[in-house]
Amino acid sequence: MSQEPLKQLMRLVSKLPGLGPRSARRAVIHLLQNRDALMKPLAQEIQRAADDIATCQLCGNLDLTDPCHICHHPGRDRRTICVVENVADLWALERNSAFKGQFHVLGGTLSALDGIGPEDLRLKELLKRIQDDQVEEVILALNATIDGQTTAHFVADQLAGKDLKVTAIAHGVPVGGELDYLDEGTITTALQSRRAV
Amino acid sequence: MSQEPLKQLMRLVSKLPGLGPRSARRAVIHLLQNRDALMKPLAQEIQRAADDIATCQLCGNLDLTDPCHICHHPGRDRRTICVVENVADLWALERNSAFKGQFHVLGGTLSALDGIGPEDLRLKELLKRIQDDQVEEVILALNATIDGQTTAHFVADQLAGKDLKVTAIAHGVPVGGELDYLDEGTITTALQSRRAV
Repeated sequence: MSQEPLKQLMRLVSKLPGLGPRSARRAVIHLLQNRDALMKPLAQEIQRAADDIATCQLCGNLDLTDPCHICHHPGRDRRTICVVENVADLWALERNSAFKGQFHVLGGTLSALDGIGPEDLRLKELLKRIQDDQVEEVILALNATIDGQTTAHFVADQLAGKDLKVTAIAHGVPVGGELDYLDEGTITTALQSRRAV
Repeated sequence: MSQEPLKQLMRLVSKLPGLGPRSARRAVIHLLQNRDALMKPLAQEIQRAADDIATCQLCGNLDLTDPCHICHHPGRDRRTICVVENVADLWALERNSAFKGQFHVLGGTLSALDGIGPEDLRLKELLKRIQDDQVEEVILALNATIDGQTTAHFVADQLAGKDLKVTAIAHGVPVGGELDYLDEGTITTALQSRRAV
């Protein structure tokens, strides 16, 4: 069959989410058959992104600059922070562009099964931002999964007693659904129907 | 949302077979979160493969060397050529390692719809090899699709009258397959190709 460099390339490609050994093989053949149009530009762009894209120390977003363009934007309301599980969720909300405040990426959810505790999430950073920016409202936009909602309750508990409003996006989100897979209308409705917890 | 280099990277990743805009976004985030373990090695391996992997001028395989290690192998029977549609099919047969002859990649199938005619396939190269290597048998291992079978008939016609045996791999019930789950075409073929036991 193929030799070492090809096997190594297919092994790496098969580690991408959504790809297995067979689709990785097809992808590699497709790349080799489109060297100039796709393969070489892809290698360059991956390298460039690996070098240039940073994690925003404030919100946890991935961007060219740190702080990211959202944290840096003068027109965005710094007193409203929307808490999300991961960067994909942040981008899903941002594609929607209904929200004009700031974001905060937790970096996951609490999970006894996977051994992820409060100290593994970016909670300390959230508490610091709340204090520094005199935040008035924290919107919990966690996924409507068991882990997401457990985490939302935990974060709400941590914020209880502080002089701010804690809200959660509405349960227009179908149970078991993830933000990154939802249409814009549902996301907008869920944002608008947020309620005090 | 994200900025230009990220968008460009996602656009390129989404061009891989089996990936769309959403799965490309997830793949890019996964890469950025695994920079040293996955992203940088992947960029290097893609670049290395783009530079080092060549198309074998004899059989059309993709390999480090030209001729490829199969064409080059002294122990493989040069008088039997197995004709396949593409490199993925060659690798599928080679994984099996039941076949000890040579391969020939056509590079596609005839398709009036896609405007692919005989001159777009590696037919002239096949005829030349048959002459040069005194080939005794050509095995047509094309896919059991309409285009694949049309192409098999065309290639068989081209080889008619030459002093060699032209065979085709068998079509029928896959090993481990259950009749109840098979389509009518397969069952009809399996019945028609029945053999004495």
